[in-house]
Amino acid sequence: MAGIDALVVSPSPDLVYLVGYSAPQLERLTTLVVYAEGDPVLLVPTLERARAAGSPAGELVEIEAWRDEEDAFQRLRALLPRAVALAVSDRMWALHVLGIQAALPEAKMLAASTVLSKLRASKDQGEIDELRRAARSADQAFDRITEEAMAGRREADVARSLREHLADTGSDEALFWIVGSGPNGASPHHEPGRRVIVDGDVVVLDFGGRAGGYCSDIIRTVSVGEPSSEVREVHQIVRTAQEAAFQAARPGAPAEQVDRVARGVIEKAGYGDAFIHRTGHGIGLEEHEPPYIVRGNAAPLEPGMTFSIEPGIYLAGRFGVRIEDIVAVTEDGAVRLNKAPRDLLVVD
Amino acid sequence: MAGIDALVVSPSPDLVYLVGYSAPQLERLTTLVVYAEGDPVLLVPTLERARAAGSPAGELVEIEAWRDEEDAFQRLRALLPRAVALAVSDRMWALHVLGIQAALPEAKMLAASTVLSKLRASKDQGEIDELRRAARSADQAFDRITEEAMAGRREADVARSLREHLADTGSDEALFWIVGSGPNGASPHHEPGRRVIVDGDVVVLDFGGRAGGYCSDIIRTVSVGEPSSEVREVHQIVRTAQEAAFQAARPGAPAEQVDRVARGVIEKAGYGDAFIHRTGHGIGLEEHEPPYIVRGNAAPLEPGMTFSIEPGIYLAGRFGVRIEDIVAVTEDGAVRLNKAPRDLLVVD
Repeated sequence: MAGIDALVVSPSPDLVYLVGYSAPQLERLTTLVVYAEGDPVLLVPTLERARAAGSPAGELVEIEAWRDEEDAFQRLRALLPRAVALAVSDRMWALHVLGIQAALPEAKMLAASTVLSKLRASKDQGEIDELRRAARSADQAFDRITEEAMAGRREADVARSLREHLADTGSDEALFWIVGSGPNGASPHHEPGRRVIVDGDVVVLDFGGRAGGYCSDIIRTVSVGEPSSEVREVHQIVRTAQEAAFQAARPGAPAEQVDRVARGVIEKAGYGDAFIHRTGHGIGLEEHEPPYIVRGNAAPLEPGMTFSIEPGIYLAGRFGVRIEDIVAVTEDGAVRLNKAPRDLLVVD
Repeated sequence: MAGIDALVVSPSPDLVYLVGYSAPQLERLTTLVVYAEGDPVLLVPTLERARAAGSPAGELVEIEAWRDEEDAFQRLRALLPRAVALAVSDRMWALHVLGIQAALPEAKMLAASTVLSKLRASKDQGEIDELRRAARSADQAFDRITEEAMAGRREADVARSLREHLADTGSDEALFWIVGSGPNGASPHHEPGRRVIVDGDVVVLDFGGRAGGYCSDIIRTVSVGEPSSEVREVHQIVRTAQEAAFQAARPGAPAEQVDRVARGVIEKAGYGDAFIHRTGHGIGLEEHEPPYIVRGNAAPLEPGMTFSIEPGIYLAGRFGVRIEDIVAVTEDGAVRLNKAPRDLLVVD
């Protein structure tokens, strides 16, 4: 671990990835300490010792436990006598980051993604198979939702159906379920609410879950009843941008190049100001992780990297269109893990 | 805000409490900046501006947005020109804590709970009513689960029933669902799994959810079939400890006194080493929050404080017993918010 004396990992996808221990992140400190040299130690609250020991981590690492009436940070300090550079997991709570800094004021701290991202960003075949399985569940959930009538239902009700479809098609849990109908579709991260969907609405469906540890994320935009020519045109622009970005995804291409290609299509069509976010994000054990497909990220794509391609156009007060697939970079290009049709589907 | 120039709040129960904005915590920086003097500002990613503006925060605070290709930490820095002491929300991700520290190396940072805990720990009547409503759902979910046979079912199946009962009795979401049967009950935070419950098992049920923003948390221990005299005795000791701790909960008593009383009962009965955690934790918008009922917390209880009282005895390899109610401190004592019977129930 270049320049790092120890990695300090709290309950997170990193902890699952490294030792197979899934634990709730709460106020009690749980951390795996991985040293540059020497055997790792898992520090857990006493009441979770049995849970940790019963997980795969029990076979892999030594477990130490601290009691509720002890100062957990002092216990951690004792495990890091000579550490001067620590990498802590990206999702560790501030409560714990600041507690560690107070107990080890001499230590320099940085985010673990600087150490782990490169490792986790390139997936092996087993991981890509898991992502494909998760994607298949998302595809099937989309198929099912298009078989239901949408007009007359609340966004929140459609969102509930999406969660059920994910569970019924092999996802262990649903992680997010955006249903943005009509003007709400122009808010990319709209929280589905009480708005009743009506004939003529464009509806953005952006949802995903976790299956076997790996995440899915798909977006399709549908029309409730026949779309206007404007909606058809905007949808076609986004679809073309998504396809062009997919074609640009290949080993050696800078991540930002994929963003530039998608943005170029949308800008040329006159909607550049309406594409208000990056083109994509990595996906794996986390729904968002490196590599980010964004201007400024010149790091080259590599075989095994998996990420979303999800351009969009948002017309405030009217409607939005976004289309997303998860793709995996191969030796000579990329493959889509999602197979659901990208045509503008018309639903009831 | 004593000694603090600004409070920097990420998506969390604190953000909901302060401005009513519920947002997903992800890698993009969202922070509310509350100054010691001057109007607060909510900094959000551009693609979530509409979501933020449509929430109660839209009426309460000025919103600024940063674009994906910008450095969010530099935007935050520009909002904190003279800040030397920052309080950041306890659950802010390390990725963001370290990003802020890098952008503002001169600033001193501490956990927001040092500023907000005192405010949030004492609930007003409206909040206690919400907690009572959440507790009622948990009580009813327990009633329902005891009407179902447990023998022959997997722990994970009973856990699924608990989640459904919470949803069906008014909880908006289930937050946790521990089902520890037989020897698994001796692991206080056991994750329910494939073990099939059999006649003669003692089963610890520890679950809760969120209703109207506030959390529930209840534990009862049941016997599948007639319990042995040892199980009856251990259950009676835990019940007595829980009752004694409840009687000790009153304004002015140090929080640790409630722990000491519960622990005293269990130690006197000869099971001191088997009570391997603190007696309780505060509860409100978060399932665990101050005040902690633990040795070393000498802070006096105050009317309006709400917390759990949950002593337990854990006999490794055999069984565990834990009983929990949420209580609210009143002017002259405390009231239980949970009403489910604390007897040792025998189920099929």
